[in-house]
Amino acid sequence: MSLSPVPFSKVAITGAFWSERLATIIERTIPSQYERLTEYGILDSLKLPQPVPPLQIPENRHGFSTQIFWDSDVGKWIEAASYALSFRRDAQIEAQIEAIIDDLEQAQTHDGYLNCWYLGRDPDNRWTNLRDNHELYCAGHLLEGAIAYWQVTGRDRLLSVLRRYVEHIAKVFGPGDGQRKGYPGHQELELALIKLWQATGDNAALDLARYFIDQRGAQPHYFDEEAKARGEDPSDFWAKSYEYNQSHLAVRDQTKVVGHAVRAMYMYAAMADLAAIDDDAGLKTACEALWADLTERRMYVTGGFGPSASNEGFTSDWDLPNETAYAETCASCAMVFWAARMLNLDLDGRYGDILELALYNNVLSGLSRDGTQYFYDNTLASDGSHRRWDWHPCPCCTMNVSRLVASVGGYYYGTNADGIAIHMYGGARVSLEVGGAGVTLDETSAYPWDSAIRIAVSPDQPVEFCLSLRIPAWSGQSTVRVNGVPQDVAIDRGYARLSRLWSPGDVVEVQLQMRPKRLWAHPLVAADRGCVALRRGPLVYCAEAVDNDVAPDLVRLPDSGALTAEASDILGGIVMLTADAAAMQTSDWGADLYRTSPPTTQPTTLRLIPYYLRANRSPSAMRVWIET
Amino acid sequence: MSLSPVPFSKVAITGAFWSERLATIIERTIPSQYERLTEYGILDSLKLPQPVPPLQIPENRHGFSTQIFWDSDVGKWIEAASYALSFRRDAQIEAQIEAIIDDLEQAQTHDGYLNCWYLGRDPDNRWTNLRDNHELYCAGHLLEGAIAYWQVTGRDRLLSVLRRYVEHIAKVFGPGDGQRKGYPGHQELELALIKLWQATGDNAALDLARYFIDQRGAQPHYFDEEAKARGEDPSDFWAKSYEYNQSHLAVRDQTKVVGHAVRAMYMYAAMADLAAIDDDAGLKTACEALWADLTERRMYVTGGFGPSASNEGFTSDWDLPNETAYAETCASCAMVFWAARMLNLDLDGRYGDILELALYNNVLSGLSRDGTQYFYDNTLASDGSHRRWDWHPCPCCTMNVSRLVASVGGYYYGTNADGIAIHMYGGARVSLEVGGAGVTLDETSAYPWDSAIRIAVSPDQPVEFCLSLRIPAWSGQSTVRVNGVPQDVAIDRGYARLSRLWSPGDVVEVQLQMRPKRLWAHPLVAADRGCVALRRGPLVYCAEAVDNDVAPDLVRLPDSGALTAEASDILGGIVMLTADAAAMQTSDWGADLYRTSPPTTQPTTLRLIPYYLRANRSPSAMRVWIET
Repeated sequence: MSLSPVPFSKVAITGAFWSERLATIIERTIPSQYERLTEYGILDSLKLPQPVPPLQIPENRHGFSTQIFWDSDVGKWIEAASYALSFRRDAQIEAQIEAIIDDLEQAQTHDGYLNCWYLGRDPDNRWTNLRDNHELYCAGHLLEGAIAYWQVTGRDRLLSVLRRYVEHIAKVFGPGDGQRKGYPGHQELELALIKLWQATGDNAALDLARYFIDQRGAQPHYFDEEAKARGEDPSDFWAKSYEYNQSHLAVRDQTKVVGHAVRAMYMYAAMADLAAIDDDAGLKTACEALWADLTERRMYVTGGFGPSASNEGFTSDWDLPNETAYAETCASCAMVFWAARMLNLDLDGRYGDILELALYNNVLSGLSRDGTQYFYDNTLASDGSHRRWDWHPCPCCTMNVSRLVASVGGYYYGTNADGIAIHMYGGARVSLEVGGAGVTLDETSAYPWDSAIRIAVSPDQPVEFCLSLRIPAWSGQSTVRVNGVPQDVAIDRGYARLSRLWSPGDVVEVQLQMRPKRLWAHPLVAADRGCVALRRGPLVYCAEAVDNDVAPDLVRLPDSGALTAEASDILGGIVMLTADAAAMQTSDWGADLYRTSPPTTQPTTLRLIPYYLRANRSPSAMRVWIET
Repeated sequence: MSLSPVPFSKVAITGAFWSERLATIIERTIPSQYERLTEYGILDSLKLPQPVPPLQIPENRHGFSTQIFWDSDVGKWIEAASYALSFRRDAQIEAQIEAIIDDLEQAQTHDGYLNCWYLGRDPDNRWTNLRDNHELYCAGHLLEGAIAYWQVTGRDRLLSVLRRYVEHIAKVFGPGDGQRKGYPGHQELELALIKLWQATGDNAALDLARYFIDQRGAQPHYFDEEAKARGEDPSDFWAKSYEYNQSHLAVRDQTKVVGHAVRAMYMYAAMADLAAIDDDAGLKTACEALWADLTERRMYVTGGFGPSASNEGFTSDWDLPNETAYAETCASCAMVFWAARMLNLDLDGRYGDILELALYNNVLSGLSRDGTQYFYDNTLASDGSHRRWDWHPCPCCTMNVSRLVASVGGYYYGTNADGIAIHMYGGARVSLEVGGAGVTLDETSAYPWDSAIRIAVSPDQPVEFCLSLRIPAWSGQSTVRVNGVPQDVAIDRGYARLSRLWSPGDVVEVQLQMRPKRLWAHPLVAADRGCVALRRGPLVYCAEAVDNDVAPDLVRLPDSGALTAEASDILGGIVMLTADAAAMQTSDWGADLYRTSPPTTQPTTLRLIPYYLRANRSPSAMRVWIET
């Protein structure tokens, strides 16, 4: 029986780890993103009408032309800002959003259409190139922003704009006579439409999401027909294969994660939603096959994936180069969305483990400590030249991190008629209904730095339900106590399930094992052969040169030996890992490039920091995988 | 005191190894190259006049446009074929060369100019783009071909054509008023002019070579001025830096090997020639610095170099990726030319060691066993998809291998007034003059498969001279006997020097140590860290999947343990290496991509073949560097 997620707005984040990230997002990231949206002309691009002739597209002062995905960036910023407003209302931010809504309202045509790039640059050619352009994608992000703003503020002006747009889209696309048989070239609208249905009960929106998912990959191929209608040869498609946008097959027939990674993840998230909503076994089976393919053959140890810059996506099994890892921040954000849906569809800790892995590592890596700089791509090794950006020509990742972190509480809990599942730890309080009673859960811990977790379970009155506690696979032997009494509880697919009559004052204590551990990659992952990575709890570690006497790529970490975790006050306070290692010597090598004896080594201590905190100090070589 | 090389034409190759390669070149390679030159329209491109309008360049049936370097390919084929003729005259080949000479004679203009691409396509713009086009380069290869044909056949018609061309070039370029201050954009002519001087005493040719070398890199930069004269912005040069063609600095100020690798090596060879001819300490010092830079920081273990396809050349120190190694065959051929000149300039075994390394490995890798297929780039690892070509759009490497192998005897010996140096072994007989007496040396060995070398020294009459025998650095302890008596001979910079009165019937026996050895790369070579390569004598080995039960990239070869050399009849008869190794297991790994225990291994025997013989059987994964 599937679970419903508990929305972030009901969850109070109380733990230090996420409170710090949330405060940074609210105080630094959201305002600085607004500055960048202004500075780069993105907000100005919404100020219509006056069509600009297509061949005279102005360059703004940073040299970017106005780009077809800018509406989506605005939508994502509104979404992130709205989530932030739920923690702390802010008149200035609200005024900024209202001004954007003015522009969007003004831009929308009478029939409901609303894409500022087309309206401004090429108004006669709307809906002529779903394959390459981003109208439906932009619609999705604007819709998500509108829903969030309405949910947090109660103001429905933007939502009304977007609902008119959705009505227009539902007229243009669909199975009926005279309707276009198309679907997004960049998936995203599907899951936004499902959110709209969830928030408003708008069945037409759900039907449209279903249509987009079911229609995808049908023959004759829509993108072929559309290209021909433009007078182009479909085989001239730059990406060569419709694997790029996952329309090479009907979605139910897909078993390999292929193509552009972000497109793929948004689509899988919508498929998981529909699998739950419609109890659709075909979609669930496809999701499971795709999940296995991603996590068993195509995912970095940091929860990133999509190694290639050329397609921003997948290549071949086991191809996970470290120095050139693309591992886009957006893709991991989108995978968190998918993982959360899989977890609530079918409570299994492996979804939670990967959700957590991606969130704490590849996702958080995308945002600097100070909340104003970003990584679009997340390499697992660097000579020090891979540095954070103030902004990016395609700023998609910046607001994907902020909207995800600002709503992180939404990934903590799932509920259904039988009980409550706790997916994440780190200090959070929530009040829920279960079995007809109100229950408050107050979880306190220093997670992810410490593994002692205390949950005060406070029902209004004694009530029986199952409390499912995620026991991460990395934890090994864990203990669960209720009111101090050890529980002999079996772990069922990654969850300790405590079914009992819960009474006010009950306390659950979970003690996970958080010893640092070595990880090895599957031998077919050529890039990681002969290397180990270190992990403690949900955090994967990396060695940065700035913490070490020796360049990380000259260090050899033996296959065994003690790993020590110790608190450090660097980087705002972390748990650092140290290990006895050997430093390859270069000073005694001599002039020969090749010689008949191996390098000599000297003992050294290798110090490692959490991967997500890399590149927050002076430029410094970095490695996740250390040679053995 | 420098040595003079003994020309290949005086050296009889008697050993099995080179005799087989020579016979293949003569019987298969030279005729098949003529077929390819015909088939691809290269020989037709010499058939002038009738200028073809520049904008109507015909495509030949293989889709290549006529290319500006085709004259050079014809020149190299004539050179290679001429060397082959010295072993066995062949009326058909001679008729083919004579027909080419007819065309060249016909194409040459009254003023001596002779570049078929310009004459055919763009006759009014000769000498306007030395930077990018290849007029002087083509002249060099045609000149080398002409010298070779004349030396072998005594026929001077082609040499006369080229000497008229050289006279023309010497009028156009030089320090005088009204002369252009240019030099080759692709070096090569310099060393050809020196060959002409060596063969004919033509001082004007030597002066021109000196001018080209001395003028290179002078300010104002010729390629800047030339670009402006074409109405171009010099900074639009596609390669961005004049490092590409080594004109960024005066040659005497150059200390780093940079840019296009073949251009560099041809230039260094000419610099070494001039250093010897002019006793020019500045050029010798520059050559020594460049040699150290190449061999100590920028050379593959196979004697290849220039890792990057984008500039066909050098990148940065220690950057030696294996899977993507460009390591152009031509570059190693050209380095053999340079090494031979360094060796005779300053008898030091390290030049001979690298000459031999490049020749037996990266150079020979460029030609298939059957003599009709080629590698342009020589990777040190492949998944099996890196296969030989029947021909190449730029066929430079094909004839560079054939001309080098067909003249390999020219690299065996050096002489001066004091004596004779033997640089190479493998079965060869030569008759020389030393100290006024005639001396025949008859070296017999099964080198490179076996390390027992016997040299019959047969002077016409007793004569005192120093016989210097190269003792490769890989050999370790070696023994030298004269007439059965062990000699207590010190190794002076890689040579055992035997100064004595030599009498008819004297026999020198050298016993080298040819045990297989592990090689490690300098720790800063990231691509080879944690790996070993195997070498026996001059041959570097590689593991091909076809000889092994396990894919080479799943094999781990321990840092120590026995390596066995044993004769095998595969690939025409080789010494194969075998080693006890461990095969990483994938079948017991399970579904996880990452886990907390290392891969299990099973004992296996790793079998390796000489690198130069790779890719002569079915497609097969291959590695030179094996993980430890």
